[in-house]
Amino acid sequence: MRNAGEKEVDEEWQGFDENIAHVPFTAERYSEAEMIKRSQEFYKLLNKRRSVRFLSDEPVPREVIDNVIRTAGTSPSGAHTEPWTFVVVQDPEIKHKIREIVEEEEEINYKKRMGDRWVNDLKRLRTNWIKEYLDTAPYLILIFKQVYGRLPNGKRKTHYYNEISVSIACGILLAALQVPNLAELSLFSMHRLQHL
Amino acid sequence: MRNAGEKEVDEEWQGFDENIAHVPFTAERYSEAEMIKRSQEFYKLLNKRRSVRFLSDEPVPREVIDNVIRTAGTSPSGAHTEPWTFVVVQDPEIKHKIREIVEEEEEINYKKRMGDRWVNDLKRLRTNWIKEYLDTAPYLILIFKQVYGRLPNGKRKTHYYNEISVSIACGILLAALQVPNLAELSLFSMHRLQHL
Repeated sequence: MRNAGEKEVDEEWQGFDENIAHVPFTAERYSEAEMIKRSQEFYKLLNKRRSVRFLSDEPVPREVIDNVIRTAGTSPSGAHTEPWTFVVVQDPEIKHKIREIVEEEEEINYKKRMGDRWVNDLKRLRTNWIKEYLDTAPYLILIFKQVYGRLPNGKRKTHYYNEISVSIACGILLAALQVPNLAELSLFSMHRLQHL
Repeated sequence: MRNAGEKEVDEEWQGFDENIAHVPFTAERYSEAEMIKRSQEFYKLLNKRRSVRFLSDEPVPREVIDNVIRTAGTSPSGAHTEPWTFVVVQDPEIKHKIREIVEEEEEINYKKRMGDRWVNDLKRLRTNWIKEYLDTAPYLILIFKQVYGRLPNGKRKTHYYNEISVSIACGILLAALQVPNLAELSLFSMHRLQHL
């Protein structure tokens, strides 16, 4: 289950925080009727989410975005490694640079990398590699997986299941964006952005 | 970006639903104060989520579970392939069989597969391969990724980004479970369960 490129030898945790006491878990209990109602309402809310490719430039308070990212950060992760980095971009120039990188990569996807079938699949969705909304949207949230972490002594430490963990956090992020009714579009797998 | 084991040649979609009209997207707009409040409250709610290893056997209406899974099904996916299967298990015998498989696999993880470092990492969390809660919990939700789908003509069709898509749906599932305050524990990567 390890990722490629992790040839450096892992070091072990030093055993710190091994003796932390269990904290009893308490949660408000709802009646059956209340559970049904809450789960239904949340379904209705999330079911309104769409992957939107024409986004408004209307400003959104930064605090909302921070809350949404904090919420994503509550996600579980393999061995509690929390292998994610969220980067919020507001600067129009950086947004535009990101757009250029994404469009270049996507053009390669459409024209070469993914093959005719991918392109054909997407024809149904009438999408292409032009992504104007990356300039328009008030915020871009870049989400990176941390394939490994650093121990206090500076050595590498493998993050097991890092891609799955980050994707779960993205799911929670999407749910959290929907709660204040923010529109969004998810783009997958843009490895080149890490060199920005 | 394709997964291993997909040697069968993919077929193309037949172009059906290519001409479906765009549906204008409408969403209620909240004031800035309301957006901040809603995002804050959702953070507070999700931040109460814990990965719980001692679960109650108290019954939960099946309707709640169905709503939660419906909610997860609203997740975005690569090329809208929705490459997930959710299986809800209530039968005590099947739950027990699942526990046996999971414990066998986890024991191998702990003793051989993952190596000392994984075990050492997990020591901090004081977990092991004994998973009594798989008998106790009123429901087990098994989530499978569909590496490929079937076209109307029966041929295989690759699901791009299937693992990422399913994991995002799992994140939404976790958020949805938290809304009616249901406790849960996520286990990753139990390939043997597909043969149950």
